Amino acid sequence: MRIGLEDLRSFTADVFATLGLAAEDAGIVADCLVGADLRGVYSHGVIRIPIYAERLRRGLFNATPNIEVTRLSASAARVDGDNGMGAVVGTRAIDEAMALAQSAGIGVVSAVHSNHYGIASYYTQRAVERGYIAISCSNAPPTTAPFGGGAPFIGTNPFAIAAPAGAHPALVLDMSSSVVARGKIIAAAQANEPIPEGWALDKHGRPTTDAAAALEGAVLTFGGPKGSGIAVFVEILAAVLAGANITHQLPDFYRNLTDVPNLGQFFLAIDVARFMPAESFRAKMDELVESLKACPPAAGHDEVLMPGEIEARLEAERVRDGIPLSAEILASLREAGAQAGVPFPEEALQPVG
Amino acid sequence: MRIGLEDLRSFTADVFATLGLAAEDAGIVADCLVGADLRGVYSHGVIRIPIYAERLRRGLFNATPNIEVTRLSASAARVDGDNGMGAVVGTRAIDEAMALAQSAGIGVVSAVHSNHYGIASYYTQRAVERGYIAISCSNAPPTTAPFGGGAPFIGTNPFAIAAPAGAHPALVLDMSSSVVARGKIIAAAQANEPIPEGWALDKHGRPTTDAAAALEGAVLTFGGPKGSGIAVFVEILAAVLAGANITHQLPDFYRNLTDVPNLGQFFLAIDVARFMPAESFRAKMDELVESLKACPPAAGHDEVLMPGEIEARLEAERVRDGIPLSAEILASLREAGAQAGVPFPEEALQPVG
Repeated sequence: MRIGLEDLRSFTADVFATLGLAAEDAGIVADCLVGADLRGVYSHGVIRIPIYAERLRRGLFNATPNIEVTRLSASAARVDGDNGMGAVVGTRAIDEAMALAQSAGIGVVSAVHSNHYGIASYYTQRAVERGYIAISCSNAPPTTAPFGGGAPFIGTNPFAIAAPAGAHPALVLDMSSSVVARGKIIAAAQANEPIPEGWALDKHGRPTTDAAAALEGAVLTFGGPKGSGIAVFVEILAAVLAGANITHQLPDFYRNLTDVPNLGQFFLAIDVARFMPAESFRAKMDELVESLKACPPAAGHDEVLMPGEIEARLEAERVRDGIPLSAEILASLREAGAQAGVPFPEEALQPVG
Repeated sequence: MRIGLEDLRSFTADVFATLGLAAEDAGIVADCLVGADLRGVYSHGVIRIPIYAERLRRGLFNATPNIEVTRLSASAARVDGDNGMGAVVGTRAIDEAMALAQSAGIGVVSAVHSNHYGIASYYTQRAVERGYIAISCSNAPPTTAPFGGGAPFIGTNPFAIAAPAGAHPALVLDMSSSVVARGKIIAAAQANEPIPEGWALDKHGRPTTDAAAALEGAVLTFGGPKGSGIAVFVEILAAVLAGANITHQLPDFYRNLTDVPNLGQFFLAIDVARFMPAESFRAKMDELVESLKACPPAAGHDEVLMPGEIEARLEAERVRDGIPLSAEILASLREAGAQAGVPFPEEALQPVG
């Protein structure tokens, strides 16, 4: 089945409003989750409603945070999220980064006492739509092995960077530092299928292709020491600079339902118009895209894709045709709605295709 | 044979001074090249003296550039390198980024009309020694294939990020976006040895393990679409934002001895003291290092290494014991010295070990 963007967004916002969020904040959380589904990143979409709702009910998220923004200098600020939901804290932070960039050319915002903030590119998208180059990253509870390590000692530490273009869609790179999402290993274990070499280690720190053994071990960081190094620097920018909790101090998001994490996040905005007329920048971005698109494809490929191009195509398609929902996600949405007293809009569902 | 740091540095500086650089600039270029050898990055060390000298003689580098620094806002500046040597332009740029960070908390500097600037971490090291978090990156002539592409359409686009620690050495990540240095493929071809799968494509865009075929094709970017995306964003930050030449507009550094490249570079400095007392930051960095070091090693590894840890160890060793020079590099230094009229300091050589 599929559902229209606005129907899914307003259902989601209603659920969070019922759970105590102000209407504006509920709308932001809904926009962040539905935005991930629009771009095909199901793992960070409405599939998260049940755990978000559970954490709100247990008081592990502050539904009505008193978010404090402190300017540290002409181009830097700290946002204390007061344990608000990540999307709410993150949106406030990227908006502040843009305000700083507007006045000082560059804005850096460090967020502390934050929470799981969905897809990292939600924030860079918001800035790119307003013409900024932007970076966003967050630390996360340890689930991956740093290079050389045999156990989960660092988070997947998502990182996004985006830049506006002209005739072409904005370029958006949004990646975790793990070689693969843990969700794919869970799926393989459930299907009793092996996983490819290079994805994970077992609990003894040995490479494994056994999905079940991998779940007791650690996912690997991508690209050897390079991806691992990126994970470490995401931890530094997002958490060390914020004075947030780091690595082993972070409770598991699903299994620990008593402790508040105090995640850290980092946001940067660059006002390209300070460097050259915005139109010149956009034209030069188009020139870059076209120079890369002119590359003959490798064997087995049809074309060179830009960072975020597949996601942008999906988004355009889904804004038009609606968002497909699997039977499992649909069931979980109905249940979450029932628990919150917000009926799922059955009339809005349509068959796919 | 090995040679003391100061002897190698003063020989190198003398060569560049003889080729027309001011004493201070010659010292910077020498420091950058010898600094790479100190850290074990031979590919960016004194091995570059002959090509640097050749390009100076042909007027392809401006030995006495009139470098122009323009402040664009409270936290941003542009540096026009006037086709000066990359190390000279880059040093000026990172110094300006630090000056901006000193006054505004954050400094971003975009450099245009620059040249090959050696190891990207030379600039972040300079900033880290003064207590800043720093980023530096540069575009480069196309030698690698973007993800999905079958030909060299983007540069190795080096990227460095560094942060100071307390009791532990600073963390320094310095990486290219290619899976391997082209130099390793050249060495394999010369030795008539195969290269591992996943390193390169042949001229038809097909994966190859034949080193000679790889040299006619393209090196792959690391980590699939992630490493490729990083290469694209280095191109954006370093070159698009600077208004420098991009990708296909860049002449090959060795084979094109008539055109000036107009490379772009990007520098960022963050004054951590704006976010928290510098001592707290350093203590928290140490805590992060120790939390990662506590990770049990994976099978086949002895320990979890921090980004830049191997290089820092080598540097300490070589500052003490001198820098080993291969017979080939030594021969090329003697020749470069003879050509410039600067005798190589034979008396400074000592046997290794």
